[in-house]
Amino acid sequence: MLTDLESRVVDDDHQALKLWLRLLSCTARVEAQIRSRLRSEFDTTLPRFDLLAQLERNPDGLAMRELSQRLMVTGGNITGITDQLEIDGLVVRSPHPTDRRSFTVKLTAAGRRQFKKMAVTHEQWVIELLSGWSAAEKAQIHGLLAILKNHQKEQS
Amino acid sequence: MLTDLESRVVDDDHQALKLWLRLLSCTARVEAQIRSRLRSEFDTTLPRFDLLAQLERNPDGLAMRELSQRLMVTGGNITGITDQLEIDGLVVRSPHPTDRRSFTVKLTAAGRRQFKKMAVTHEQWVIELLSGWSAAEKAQIHGLLAILKNHQKEQS
Repeated sequence: MLTDLESRVVDDDHQALKLWLRLLSCTARVEAQIRSRLRSEFDTTLPRFDLLAQLERNPDGLAMRELSQRLMVTGGNITGITDQLEIDGLVVRSPHPTDRRSFTVKLTAAGRRQFKKMAVTHEQWVIELLSGWSAAEKAQIHGLLAILKNHQKEQS
Repeated sequence: MLTDLESRVVDDDHQALKLWLRLLSCTARVEAQIRSRLRSEFDTTLPRFDLLAQLERNPDGLAMRELSQRLMVTGGNITGITDQLEIDGLVVRSPHPTDRRSFTVKLTAAGRRQFKKMAVTHEQWVIELLSGWSAAEKAQIHGLLAILKNHQKEQS
């Protein structure tokens, strides 16, 4: 299949735009499914889940600014989400060790437990939603995305 | 490169999740660039641009419900955006031909002109932002995304 595609690569001016629209729509469709399932199964939102995921990967906590740089999805007010998660007992703010005007946010034990429960189910959804690709196709697209990612880093 | 990748495909349980996070972050990075440039160069937002783009592809107009189904990005209040675009003279609402409780939204001549001006620049940005991929790589990823898209259709 790849050979077919390569051989019919045309010097189409609109190739990049068509590809971008397809990338956006495929991603948006998976994301919409995940948003909807997070809501119905865990009564939570993708920005909340994303915030907990970033904290889980950074057990020492993150400053608000670091947190906002690491979030994968947009659309949430980070301060508002953190406030709500703190009220729910899932995260805790502490004074930042070096910057007195700032805070570090960490998961609580309850936050870690709840995130882990959701993460297992979330991963099953992702496996299912990407199951249209074989393992070899997944590896191919992962490699192709690595090329773009490295190029993005060089540009920024 | 692809052969290398295929040969080192491992039965990694986390393959789908890692791929999804990479897909999300690459897409989000391009999207963030486009949002930021739309704001600085055209003083507009991605949901507004997206809405105009859908109307440009549908010259006979779209009912609000059709419009909301076709939008590629989330995060905008469609009625609010349409109101604002109508105030700006870029779109116009007319009574829906068959559904008396609904409206059809169309581009005005000014809306079409303004969209076309932005679309040319937007396409240049996309070409630049995806320029990390060669034409052959773009064709490969387009083909791989087609597989996922068809699978998504079967599932829904």
